Amino acid sequence: MAFEYRPMRSIIYVDCVREEYRHRLQHWLYAIHVPDSISKFAPYVTKYAFYNALPTPPEGERFGTRRMQMTEHYWMVNEMTPEMHVNAFGERMPLEVLRWQGMVPDVDTLPVVNLDGDAARSSGGDNGMPPFVFAHVPMNWQEDYKGAGRTVDDGPNYRWQFVLRWPDEEAGEKWFNEVFVPYFVGRPEVNRFVSSKIYHDVVGCQFHRLVEMWFDGPEEWYAAAVEGTKDMPKPQWAVDAPEEAPQAQFPFLKSNFNIVGMFLSDMAASDNLTQYRGYLQMR
Amino acid sequence: MAFEYRPMRSIIYVDCVREEYRHRLQHWLYAIHVPDSISKFAPYVTKYAFYNALPTPPEGERFGTRRMQMTEHYWMVNEMTPEMHVNAFGERMPLEVLRWQGMVPDVDTLPVVNLDGDAARSSGGDNGMPPFVFAHVPMNWQEDYKGAGRTVDDGPNYRWQFVLRWPDEEAGEKWFNEVFVPYFVGRPEVNRFVSSKIYHDVVGCQFHRLVEMWFDGPEEWYAAAVEGTKDMPKPQWAVDAPEEAPQAQFPFLKSNFNIVGMFLSDMAASDNLTQYRGYLQMR
Amino acid sequence: MAFEYRPMRSIIYVDCVREEYRHRLQHWLYAIHVPDSISKFAPYVTKYAFYNALPTPPEGERFGTRRMQMTEHYWMVNEMTPEMHVNAFGERMPLEVLRWQGMVPDVDTLPVVNLDGDAARSSGGDNGMPPFVFAHVPMNWQEDYKGAGRTVDDGPNYRWQFVLRWPDEEAGEKWFNEVFVPYFVGRPEVNRFVSSKIYHDVVGCQFHRLVEMWFDGPEEWYAAAVEGTKDMPKPQWAVDAPEEAPQAQFPFLKSNFNIVGMFLSDMAASDNLTQYRGYLQMR
Amino acid sequence: MAFEYRPMRSIIYVDCVREEYRHRLQHWLYAIHVPDSISKFAPYVTKYAFYNALPTPPEGERFGTRRMQMTEHYWMVNEMTPEMHVNAFGERMPLEVLRWQGMVPDVDTLPVVNLDGDAARSSGGDNGMPPFVFAHVPMNWQEDYKGAGRTVDDGPNYRWQFVLRWPDEEAGEKWFNEVFVPYFVGRPEVNRFVSSKIYHDVVGCQFHRLVEMWFDGPEEWYAAAVEGTKDMPKPQWAVDAPEEAPQAQFPFLKSNFNIVGMFLSDMAASDNLTQYRGYLQMR
Amino acid sequence: MAFEYRPMRSIIYVDCVREEYRHRLQHWLYAIHVPDSISKFAPYVTKYAFYNALPTPPEGERFGTRRMQMTEHYWMVNEMTPEMHVNAFGERMPLEVLRWQGMVPDVDTLPVVNLDGDAARSSGGDNGMPPFVFAHVPMNWQEDYKGAGRTVDDGPNYRWQFVLRWPDEEAGEKWFNEVFVPYFVGRPEVNRFVSSKIYHDVVGCQFHRLVEMWFDGPEEWYAAAVEGTKDMPKPQWAVDAPEEAPQAQFPFLKSNFNIVGMFLSDMAASDNLTQYRGYLQMR
Amino acid sequence: MAFEYRPMRSIIYVDCVREEYRHRLQHWLYAIHVPDSISKFAPYVTKYAFYNALPTPPEGERFGTRRMQMTEHYWMVNEMTPEMHVNAFGERMPLEVLRWQGMVPDVDTLPVVNLDGDAARSSGGDNGMPPFVFAHVPMNWQEDYKGAGRTVDDGPNYRWQFVLRWPDEEAGEKWFNEVFVPYFVGRPEVNRFVSSKIYHDVVGCQFHRLVEMWFDGPEEWYAAAVEGTKDMPKPQWAVDAPEEAPQAQFPFLKSNFNIVGMFLSDMAASDNLTQYRGYLQMR
Repeated sequence: MAFEYRPMRSIIYVDCVREEYRHRLQHWLYAIHVPDSISKFAPYVTKYAFYNALPTPPEGERFGTRRMQMTEHYWMVNEMTPEMHVNAFGERMPLEVLRWQGMVPDVDTLPVVNLDGDAARSSGGDNGMPPFVFAHVPMNWQEDYKGAGRTVDDGPNYRWQFVLRWPDEEAGEKWFNEVFVPYFVGRPEVNRFVSSKIYHDVVGCQFHRLVEMWFDGPEEWYAAAVEGTKDMPKPQWAVDAPEEAPQAQFPFLKSNFNIVGMFLSDMAASDNLTQYRGYLQMR
Repeated sequence: MAFEYRPMRSIIYVDCVREEYRHRLQHWLYAIHVPDSISKFAPYVTKYAFYNALPTPPEGERFGTRRMQMTEHYWMVNEMTPEMHVNAFGERMPLEVLRWQGMVPDVDTLPVVNLDGDAARSSGGDNGMPPFVFAHVPMNWQEDYKGAGRTVDDGPNYRWQFVLRWPDEEAGEKWFNEVFVPYFVGRPEVNRFVSSKIYHDVVGCQFHRLVEMWFDGPEEWYAAAVEGTKDMPKPQWAVDAPEEAPQAQFPFLKSNFNIVGMFLSDMAASDNLTQYRGYLQMR
Repeated sequence: MAFEYRPMRSIIYVDCVREEYRHRLQHWLYAIHVPDSISKFAPYVTKYAFYNALPTPPEGERFGTRRMQMTEHYWMVNEMTPEMHVNAFGERMPLEVLRWQGMVPDVDTLPVVNLDGDAARSSGGDNGMPPFVFAHVPMNWQEDYKGAGRTVDDGPNYRWQFVLRWPDEEAGEKWFNEVFVPYFVGRPEVNRFVSSKIYHDVVGCQFHRLVEMWFDGPEEWYAAAVEGTKDMPKPQWAVDAPEEAPQAQFPFLKSNFNIVGMFLSDMAASDNLTQYRGYLQMR
Repeated sequence: MAFEYRPMRSIIYVDCVREEYRHRLQHWLYAIHVPDSISKFAPYVTKYAFYNALPTPPEGERFGTRRMQMTEHYWMVNEMTPEMHVNAFGERMPLEVLRWQGMVPDVDTLPVVNLDGDAARSSGGDNGMPPFVFAHVPMNWQEDYKGAGRTVDDGPNYRWQFVLRWPDEEAGEKWFNEVFVPYFVGRPEVNRFVSSKIYHDVVGCQFHRLVEMWFDGPEEWYAAAVEGTKDMPKPQWAVDAPEEAPQAQFPFLKSNFNIVGMFLSDMAASDNLTQYRGYLQMR
Repeated sequence: MAFEYRPMRSIIYVDCVREEYRHRLQHWLYAIHVPDSISKFAPYVTKYAFYNALPTPPEGERFGTRRMQMTEHYWMVNEMTPEMHVNAFGERMPLEVLRWQGMVPDVDTLPVVNLDGDAARSSGGDNGMPPFVFAHVPMNWQEDYKGAGRTVDDGPNYRWQFVLRWPDEEAGEKWFNEVFVPYFVGRPEVNRFVSSKIYHDVVGCQFHRLVEMWFDGPEEWYAAAVEGTKDMPKPQWAVDAPEEAPQAQFPFLKSNFNIVGMFLSDMAASDNLTQYRGYLQMR
Repeated sequence: MAFEYRPMRSIIYVDCVREEYRHRLQHWLYAIHVPDSISKFAPYVTKYAFYNALPTPPEGERFGTRRMQMTEHYWMVNEMTPEMHVNAFGERMPLEVLRWQGMVPDVDTLPVVNLDGDAARSSGGDNGMPPFVFAHVPMNWQEDYKGAGRTVDDGPNYRWQFVLRWPDEEAGEKWFNEVFVPYFVGRPEVNRFVSSKIYHDVVGCQFHRLVEMWFDGPEEWYAAAVEGTKDMPKPQWAVDAPEEAPQAQFPFLKSNFNIVGMFLSDMAASDNLTQYRGYLQMR
């Protein structure tokens, strides 16, 4: 039995399907899930942070934009290996938490059960609901297309971060490199553009690529991602896969299934390993 | 020269008038304003926290709902007394920060200047823009109308917190006690209801009363505050003051001028004196 | 309505009446009560610490020795005044917690209810059970009988700390000053000896005096407090009050009712305002 | 010279042989040893925590129950390799500390010396005293016999954790799997049961196995481990090794030599890397 | 017995008379004195910080420039009142620490004793050595002569902070207001200039005034304080008091007795209440 | 693409070439560089600390003594590998910062540019200025020549730490082992002496060896390193390389080019990952 040093970053996009649930989901995340998580993985996770989703900009829904938060981990080992399988205690993940996130239907007839983490993380997609996105990537970005050297003094960033799942990986990647990348590199609104391929061998994530672009704000994003792409021809791989790429316009892919992402600012809402002090309430 | 022990809580409602400004305002708040503030008042402030505004619910605009955050301080002394007047260094408050918050017009022709804190805090209202709200109240709530004893185990709360400025204080307070309070105490959606009068002698705040009610969520708020009040008659003090109380329906008062508030969850986004670690960025 | 600056220290002695309850009581204290407490009083408490009870030494039971922890607060205001009465949320104090502490009978027929803090703190004594001890004293010790100047380099201390309730205050205090103090000042085992009178006007505490003595260890305590006092004559005030002072030997007073205390080391188990990070579990 | 990534957890059971020493040992642990340790291993230890021993339950002495604390580390490298041998400074481990822990005789004639860490850690056993227990195990548990998925909401746990040293490893392990495990899995009082084999190649620890079981409390432990095992036949390997397994009843093994353990609650007394603030004293 | 709310700032200038002592004094300050101090005054001190002395600039010796650190406290109460007199434990202040600071002669024949804090703080001056400077001033500066509104973005500051003791207070203050203040206000090198009178009723400090001026660096300080004052006439109060004002040039006062100060940067070396983690060593 | 676990310590010696720059350099280090650095490397750095340079002792300039601080990192991976190359944001390193450190000429005609970290770290030496020293060594010391077992109780240490670059590595190392080591091992002033070879394959550092010796203070250092070496013959390798070893006396090597070091105390000025709270200013 061997423990391999395998530093990785992972990204989770948490949705909130109804405003009625936002404060409840927040309570579960901070009061229940953070202490469960720190208790479990403190010895082998070096960063564990929450980043709040910015409000979805106009037409953002078409891009699979989720509305609660991005959860980020930096791991030293792959937690999914057999030697990491046994845990002293289980995490508390009632099914209603997945309902709030849109991974199971938003109905009151759900059974009241506690999921284990693996069940929770494999929910969605197969059941007709959008997939739970848990994407592992290398610790640092792999590709740097534009804007290297930009510093915090160059101004706050409006970050668009998302994962892509191609109907046909080879064709999708080719189009990404030949069309997508040059287009956004050429847009004056794009200040920074990086990307990495997603590991498939960690949790079986079906997405292929993680992308991040920085804009001055949502108006610049709209100019580049919506207005500027109006005349971008639908690629053949998309025409060939109408179920996974049903949109006539960019991004073509099926929203919330083949493209999922979030709009973020530069700053973590909570760097949990260093800032968490328990769930305290306003007086 | 004497320093009086005068423990107070204060509430500031920060607006964000355009999504293009949200991440910039966040950057100013966390990268610029928090360290300026801690450096300045750490010796006499015992709590300094930020609470994120929840998204404005339907018709929430009519209630003067602001969209960025509530800033809370607990003071041991009144910072506005003469013996507290001299400060070693100034706070950085560029005028554009007030523009982002809606205290000055959202135009590019604003001069580029740094305001001192007092100028910033007295902005708005007089210039036709909504007033900066900086309300000091007693350390604990004064009035407890409903729900005493509710604990964190009773569930996460959707908190509606707001300040009221009556055109006629006596008439307004009478109506508050005889109509407003009984109505909301009687609504099943209201789980908790507390209130305090606002001190006028600290920063000259013109609002009279701070109110907080807790609901299960925005749908319950809507039922109680919008639907349930449809037939509430417009009170005479409101009829008599069409400029300060122009709305035909509850809350009658001029939104963002005579009623200003926010929807909040139970949890601070950042308890700055204990959790702040500097402005760190996502990698 | 005025808030008076009134710095005070308070002492609570928490008992654990059966080992079956120790880990449950610990869970309630750290997982439930600490976050409730910090949320409530962070703006006006400057220190909030737990000190673990050392094991009861031989014959320690006769001295009202409690077995869980001493809870210490430093307050800036008297929380019991009318202006401090309204709290946004209630603390979670299920009746079974008082059962574990011995404030209500150790029977399974107790109703399942949540007490508010005041009800909890006034439990015991009147119901035949030992009183809840919540003693407020001046911020610093009032009387310094022996050992001033002892530093941490003089060695770890075995601290005996307790409260006394005289059947007759005047007679008791006279005896304390004329007999008790000279006796312990004269014992070579006593390294340090300090005391304060307890405020009666804060929570109505019926105890009169808080005492603390430092020894090298329990064997030295036994020599001084048990063996050395064998021939100490029973004072007249004790003879006159057989119910409150039923013991033939020192300390004469009724254990756990008229004398309550604890054996402590120098170090806090948790300085909650600075060290608490939420309830985390062993993996 | 190579540094191998080898994540491990280690367990130390610290005894306190006389109450006269408890506060002194605590002082050494927190005032002396924690800063020495953090200074030394902060770059390659990811968790360093102390867990207080619960009081020994009835008959607990027969199970090698130690009385001070369990010390837990999570290492990234094996500190015992040659490339980790040189340390800038030595740790302070006066011989009397081992006396307080029962690793050397409790006599006043001990020489006054400072041990280095390795000498301290190899003390006991060979000198007729109980061995110092420093057991390295894989980061996560290897075997999960019962209770997977139990969460913190299922209630506070009374944890029985211990190491076993078989006189004959093969026979002992066979009996463990065929008798011990089925017996405790079948007991209704056992809520959780996990175990791992101990690495022999790190510090030469002679114990074979680390076991942990969770009960509701000491009464349930007694029912399962003492009363329920009354009729368990003495296994042949125990009959064959009367010196290492002298007890007629379960656990058969020589207490404090072949079985050593502790009763623990769920919570760390101090998570030193995140909570330590220096040695501060009660006022 | 009453505890008065009396917020104050205090300033201590710690000297280091020989480089042979700098690391020893640092060790005493951080390993010994900080934990003693926090243990003692945490309930009533709201800020406790150390600021490193910058190297003494050319001719700085003539200005009573001390060479170790400035120690700053913010108190809520006057620690010197009778009700604050009794302390549970003493602080460790060996006489050699005063030797390192220049409060007692730098000779090896000093007795080895532990001083209590009051003895230490009243050392010097009377014994022919420079006085221990422990100056209490109002929480905020009283006088703001120049540079109000300067922010951290205006650049790092070279701060000259010092206390003055006039031979004749009335004459000295008059000269300060009529000559000193106008001169430095008029110097272009002075970016900021504030001052306060020192309380005499706290610890009996004999200095009259605390002054702070900010420069771009030591070269600007030299231009203003040394070169620019060459022709400043010796004031009559100085001529009249040759022992306390023996210098022919500005600052006229007896260095290290009637003027004592330090050159500081903007930043605390350690904000002890929030940053102290015990005395940890380099590996 | 693979991430190798390669724990290393690295040492940077930061100089300050003029007192006019010390507070500016401090501001850049703490206000600008620490948050940039933590944001960048928190996931794979386990310790990041600053140690203040003690004042340069007499003749210390001949030993390449730098005057600002030593910056220490403990890395889990080699940051210079291709898979670590892409960074989300750039660090802010204006050229003037290198000027303050003496890596570029101290002239006002420098262009105003932001360097990336690699450019900054490869500055100096080649341009005639002293080299930037960034030396990676094994996590623990390799050689332990004297003083093993010394503890913090043996007294505060005056640490002399430096790197050596031999003109001829083989000859230099031979002399180091045969002359240098025996000499300093034999000096009574040397309390501790350790060393490691520097990795050349990380950042291309040209220095060969890191050395650290501990003295009681600068006077003991002077006795051993200056006075005691007066008669040490200039070694042949030094005679043969007059440009790199121009000094007639020990250390022979070219100061600030072939020998660079610092005098340090035991304590970090800031352990940034655990103590940094943002850039806060004195009031």
